[in-house]
Amino acid sequence: MMIKKLITFEDLGFVQWGVLDTEETGVYSAIALEEAFFTPLPETLAEFIQQGNEGLLALADALEQNEKTQAVKAKPLATVHILAPLPQLTKNIFCVGENYAEHIEEFHKKKLDSLPKYPQFFTKAPTCVIGPEDTIDSHPQVTKELDYEGELAVIIGTSGKDIPVSEAMNHVYGFTIMNDVTARDLQRNHGQWFHGKSLDTFAPMGPCILLRDAAPDTFTIVTKVNDEVRQDASTEEFIFPIPSLISTLSQGTTLQPGDIISTGTPSGVGAGFKPPRYIHSGDTVEISISSIGTLKNTVK
Amino acid sequence: MMIKKLITFEDLGFVQWGVLDTEETGVYSAIALEEAFFTPLPETLAEFIQQGNEGLLALADALEQNEKTQAVKAKPLATVHILAPLPQLTKNIFCVGENYAEHIEEFHKKKLDSLPKYPQFFTKAPTCVIGPEDTIDSHPQVTKELDYEGELAVIIGTSGKDIPVSEAMNHVYGFTIMNDVTARDLQRNHGQWFHGKSLDTFAPMGPCILLRDAAPDTFTIVTKVNDEVRQDASTEEFIFPIPSLISTLSQGTTLQPGDIISTGTPSGVGAGFKPPRYIHSGDTVEISISSIGTLKNTVK
Repeated sequence: MMIKKLITFEDLGFVQWGVLDTEETGVYSAIALEEAFFTPLPETLAEFIQQGNEGLLALADALEQNEKTQAVKAKPLATVHILAPLPQLTKNIFCVGENYAEHIEEFHKKKLDSLPKYPQFFTKAPTCVIGPEDTIDSHPQVTKELDYEGELAVIIGTSGKDIPVSEAMNHVYGFTIMNDVTARDLQRNHGQWFHGKSLDTFAPMGPCILLRDAAPDTFTIVTKVNDEVRQDASTEEFIFPIPSLISTLSQGTTLQPGDIISTGTPSGVGAGFKPPRYIHSGDTVEISISSIGTLKNTVK
Repeated sequence: MMIKKLITFEDLGFVQWGVLDTEETGVYSAIALEEAFFTPLPETLAEFIQQGNEGLLALADALEQNEKTQAVKAKPLATVHILAPLPQLTKNIFCVGENYAEHIEEFHKKKLDSLPKYPQFFTKAPTCVIGPEDTIDSHPQVTKELDYEGELAVIIGTSGKDIPVSEAMNHVYGFTIMNDVTARDLQRNHGQWFHGKSLDTFAPMGPCILLRDAAPDTFTIVTKVNDEVRQDASTEEFIFPIPSLISTLSQGTTLQPGDIISTGTPSGVGAGFKPPRYIHSGDTVEISISSIGTLKNTVK
């Protein structure tokens, strides 16, 4: 079988990672494959990403042996608890501020005269990562303007600095979905965006990492709030395509395996409506990206 | 002896940490104390900070035994290579944008009508930390406007969220010096400040961590470029004092041991002069903060 999607999950109280089966209804646990075939596989997906192609080759070897012996059965996905692919993040979450023209217009409440010349980069605190089965905290004491932002997130696989555009995709390990949850009032009041983007639980991520080699050239992104479509866009609309983002960010700055670059959100966020349509306790936000899957979280 | 200053250093190719002696001319190595007195002390200063008071009591105990036996000699500081106190940072560098009124005026080139109501928070990438004996890369291909910012940095010791102002100082482990090196052109062009603040080598830090209990209530900060005084201020001038910064940042966001909050820079940065006085290859920047010491780095 082809290795396409990797997940981190909890089963019987034990956090582990694995690869989805062809039907995408079950997961082959890395630790089970390691024990069955003596293939050394690391404990976490973060460490596996660090190994790059070498890790992928070892995993492919174990899966090939398993096709013959069937020693390891796929665990049904329905029976495990799926976590964020990189739940204990120690690398960076780089975010791109304004990468879709229509979102810039809705955010600034005016038509664009011209496209921005430079991408805006900010970060989210790694502490705010949650998984696809976790709830978003509405932080009612801290914000009155809780908003969603559906985004395609790129996972860096190979370290690099001053990366040329032409080589940028070679540094990509894969893709996942991120909800760049934002407290609009904090974002506005504090000038710089970091604080309003970094409250605990503000980075739902998952459900899987889609490997670069299994990814299409463009993705569609659809965000629903309580089943109503709010965002519907294609990454063809990017002002700064992924190779350009990676190249720009890496000028003078070393990117590391496991770093995440979230590529910005299309129009249709709550703040873009008149009056604004923020999210509240009990709402669900569901972000679907073609070929990757759906990231669905409820607001607590 | 009283434990006042902790450093990370390299000696004979081995990275370790220790405590400065009373004269501040030598360092007692933690690993040497551990071996002599069977006191368990962790390998890195980051892990030691995680242990909080328990770690400090164990270290005090070892030092007390050493006063009697003199089994461990202090290594002369001149013979070791001093590193950043937290050289392999996996936590956050939170920075405060505008915390001294005169700096806001020089940065925006106009008089303030009123003080800001909210602090601006942004981050620097942990990958850009360097030590007091390292050189700042001028990144001539990436920036033409390299600038310095002398700052007092707070090191968080105890995890917390929604911390009240009255309890904020209990979460402080100690203090160090940071040079918030900035590429002004990138800061301006990219809107959000992260990118222009995060090029490799843009976070010189050190030379030591001054423990909270050994720290004065206010500090003076003097920055010299090639021996000429550029910044000279007191932390009494803070618009947002340290307890207020910690409390605000922690509303909804969990702070972790080892997180760094750099408290903003006073007036006198290169961009504040007419014409601007940026730094270039061969220049040295020397930041002295009372009771902590001096952080001196040369531009490569």
